[in-house]
Amino acid sequence: MSKKYAIGIDFGTLSARAVLVCTDNGEVIASAVSEYAHKVMERELPCGIKLKPDSALQHPQDYLDALHETVGTVLRESGVSADDIVGVATDFTSSTVFPIDSDGTPLCFKEEYQSSPHAYAKMWKDHTSHEYSERLRTLSEERGEAFLGDYSGKISSEWLIPKLAAIAVEDESLYNDTAKYIEAGDFIVMKLTGSMSTSSGNAGFKALWNSDSGFPSGELLHTAYPDIKGDLREKIVTNVLPVGSIAGYVDRDGALLTGLCEGTPVCVNMIDAHAAIPAVGITAPGKLLMIMGTSTCHLAMSKEKKKCKGVTGVVKDGFVHGYYAYEAGQNCVGDCFDWFVTHMVPAEYTKEAQTRDIGIHALLSEKAEKKRAGENGLLALDWWNGCRSDLLNDRLSGMILGMNLSTRAEDIYRALIEATAFGTRLICENYRSAGIIFDEIIASGGIAKKNPLMMQIYADIVGTPIHIAETDQAGALGCAVMAAAAGSAWRNITEAAQAMVKPCVKTYYPNPESTCVYDKLYAEYVRMHDILSEDDSPTSLLYSLRTS
Amino acid sequence: MSKKYAIGIDFGTLSARAVLVCTDNGEVIASAVSEYAHKVMERELPCGIKLKPDSALQHPQDYLDALHETVGTVLRESGVSADDIVGVATDFTSSTVFPIDSDGTPLCFKEEYQSSPHAYAKMWKDHTSHEYSERLRTLSEERGEAFLGDYSGKISSEWLIPKLAAIAVEDESLYNDTAKYIEAGDFIVMKLTGSMSTSSGNAGFKALWNSDSGFPSGELLHTAYPDIKGDLREKIVTNVLPVGSIAGYVDRDGALLTGLCEGTPVCVNMIDAHAAIPAVGITAPGKLLMIMGTSTCHLAMSKEKKKCKGVTGVVKDGFVHGYYAYEAGQNCVGDCFDWFVTHMVPAEYTKEAQTRDIGIHALLSEKAEKKRAGENGLLALDWWNGCRSDLLNDRLSGMILGMNLSTRAEDIYRALIEATAFGTRLICENYRSAGIIFDEIIASGGIAKKNPLMMQIYADIVGTPIHIAETDQAGALGCAVMAAAAGSAWRNITEAAQAMVKPCVKTYYPNPESTCVYDKLYAEYVRMHDILSEDDSPTSLLYSLRTS
Repeated sequence: MSKKYAIGIDFGTLSARAVLVCTDNGEVIASAVSEYAHKVMERELPCGIKLKPDSALQHPQDYLDALHETVGTVLRESGVSADDIVGVATDFTSSTVFPIDSDGTPLCFKEEYQSSPHAYAKMWKDHTSHEYSERLRTLSEERGEAFLGDYSGKISSEWLIPKLAAIAVEDESLYNDTAKYIEAGDFIVMKLTGSMSTSSGNAGFKALWNSDSGFPSGELLHTAYPDIKGDLREKIVTNVLPVGSIAGYVDRDGALLTGLCEGTPVCVNMIDAHAAIPAVGITAPGKLLMIMGTSTCHLAMSKEKKKCKGVTGVVKDGFVHGYYAYEAGQNCVGDCFDWFVTHMVPAEYTKEAQTRDIGIHALLSEKAEKKRAGENGLLALDWWNGCRSDLLNDRLSGMILGMNLSTRAEDIYRALIEATAFGTRLICENYRSAGIIFDEIIASGGIAKKNPLMMQIYADIVGTPIHIAETDQAGALGCAVMAAAAGSAWRNITEAAQAMVKPCVKTYYPNPESTCVYDKLYAEYVRMHDILSEDDSPTSLLYSLRTS
Repeated sequence: MSKKYAIGIDFGTLSARAVLVCTDNGEVIASAVSEYAHKVMERELPCGIKLKPDSALQHPQDYLDALHETVGTVLRESGVSADDIVGVATDFTSSTVFPIDSDGTPLCFKEEYQSSPHAYAKMWKDHTSHEYSERLRTLSEERGEAFLGDYSGKISSEWLIPKLAAIAVEDESLYNDTAKYIEAGDFIVMKLTGSMSTSSGNAGFKALWNSDSGFPSGELLHTAYPDIKGDLREKIVTNVLPVGSIAGYVDRDGALLTGLCEGTPVCVNMIDAHAAIPAVGITAPGKLLMIMGTSTCHLAMSKEKKKCKGVTGVVKDGFVHGYYAYEAGQNCVGDCFDWFVTHMVPAEYTKEAQTRDIGIHALLSEKAEKKRAGENGLLALDWWNGCRSDLLNDRLSGMILGMNLSTRAEDIYRALIEATAFGTRLICENYRSAGIIFDEIIASGGIAKKNPLMMQIYADIVGTPIHIAETDQAGALGCAVMAAAAGSAWRNITEAAQAMVKPCVKTYYPNPESTCVYDKLYAEYVRMHDILSEDDSPTSLLYSLRTS
């Protein structure tokens, strides 16, 4: 029997990456990256129209170009015949959404809407719909809407419904011409297969859907947005499939666009971060995945539904069919270290790093590593971009306590690492108190592989072994695992992952002495966390003075 | 009538400075500086003997050399005849103390004691007697000793009695040969006049003396230090004179040493910082003097004795005869800004300062000045070297709250300035609540003249006009004012100061808008101050982890 292959495509913030993988062993035969020509539009549209502050738009043509290019490249470079591709799967940033007409054409492709900001793809990090998310949240809270509990009582302006409501209120004509307001990933799957669907993960984590009650009621939405005519839900893709399901098969148009064979199975699109779960071999509850980069995402699963503090979503079939999925996270991790390195490291250190031809992160790690836990005498709160670990409050801000005249840059650098580790411990403890149990942590993402000091501190602070995932392209590989199972190369995702995922490359075990010190510091971290997050805490005043 | 002159000599930490001043108008005719050859001995004696950690010793020969040189130089360079010098006064760092024999010779001058650390001058900042100060403090507290209230319940290891107790316990033979354990300033006056005295200021602020009950009881000292034979107090100079009194007249030996005429009046020695009081024209209650440098000292007076939180001493006749004197302070002001500039300012700023040929302090001030009060979104606690403003607790440490990804070096620099200003406001409020009233503040010291941003922030935060003193050599000039009054050039110190002190060079008035913002921030400063100084606060743990 000839070897079989699967293709996974990961659509990130600035580019898409495809991998073509052997379904036997996960070996990556070819990979290709395509950058989006329009990047992120934050200040103006291509026609020169100015955008509101907090806008982050993209051009859907870039997604189609990336699909065409990356799949074409991996097929060509691998020399693999399209006949031997058993399946395709995609992941995409989310909620990244735009309006299409009844033919499936993005409205921004049409001349009459080229200067309408609402016609373009609103990226996950577009925050212009804050007013609409707040209105829905307040009302849902007043009415005691049950679904709100699945989101720790918060509704983010990054999610689909507030973004759609903004269009309906602010650009009625565009709204009337909108057949569906579609997730970019679901649009890609539609272009491949001709059929429209969304995943339980996407609908659950980003569109307030749950498997029991579906989307929020029309009456709630109408009360929240009384100016909108008709039922907002008619514009949403409501064909919700469990993650891992086959959404359809490559059709004639899809084959023309990509070079794939007609009939190739295509999975329902996944949220980008969630695609890392199969990529590290997690196919059932019992392990926590920590995806570490500028921010960190903590993904866990359980068999029964649990109520957990601070999660940004609880979704049945959200990651893997048959399990409840939970997402929590910290929105400022690598970003915080980069802030420090850019703005707080003295010239003397910059010079030493240059002379020795090493990075400043490496230099600071080297210096910080020489001290034992607690020796820096510092305690920090990791709230440089608000607190998302459990409070979901953007107005909170960072703190460093314990400075004296002998405090040096490496001491603060280490304190910032420790602070983010305390934030991770808080998330882990919330999971565990809720009965979402795991006995090991798998870490993936750039920082996990590059910074041993950090990973050791994380193991010491969380008190749990941390395994470092092998792959550097978790999203695309996870898609390929899903695609292999969907394409029947394996009986299910568990078998596909067992065969295709390489073992973790390293494990950090907690050092008992350090853990003992960090247990004490963590208690103080929690105390400061509680004090500084009270409604009338100094952080509220600081926020209002800074932004007034 | 020929013009008359006075000489003031300020013995600082690393050098002594003399000024020869016209008593008519305070004009400085000549000044001279002499640096101490042995500087500060922190690690070893000249013979190579190693010192304990926290030692800070000096060689009394350096003081005599400085006296000889500086007085000789000002007489020679001014061309003023020694006959026209109406008086001499000195100030000295304190408590800087050493043992002398019955002839007045420092024991470290003797061959048999040249390798005994205890024979040398223990500077104010020598902290090797911590155990002895703690023992005395604990016992005094247990026994409810009344004098302890004048020192906010604390006894510093920098003061005379713990330093003397350390000698008695640790070097019995040296102790037995000690006739007196004398303040360096009193030693200088003795060398000039042949008579031994100490000022009410020195005895009160540094030797637990008060005008009602004298020195601590022999019984208390014996109970605190049971190993010491005899009465410790016999080694202390007990001839206590009010500040400003004539201690004696230059004798034959004093004239030979300095070139002054025999019979010239010499004032009792003052504590160095206190000499700034006459130098800025303060001769009665109603004004607060703020001496700003690496640390800041806040000096105030009242007619009646008041109980004030956080002062390091309440002493009758301590600054000016007839009034109660109060000292409070912050032990890390300029030091904290220097720490920041040395260890936390990025290479980019260092380069900009170099290119523009300005200092980094100036660059940061320029950038920080562009923002309104509160715009940095930060709140700091000024405890980089513990809290001395009201808590007298060395174990506390600094805090910065409110950081986010847009925080820059100038924002933190400004927050540190604000933090020290909040500390000063706390001291001012404690003074005022105690009924020690003042309606203006006079600031002297290097920072006061050099940093307009800082002084404006101080005025805004304290809410009181701040006048900047004219003199750059407050200590020596204040001595000269005292000397002019003692030498009868004027009837009293008030008249001398009126004639000899130049008006303040600038006044900073509170800006009402900024004051309104800072009032809110100050309330949060006080809240964090209270939270973080509780016995079980995180700062205690951080201190123990850092130092364990």
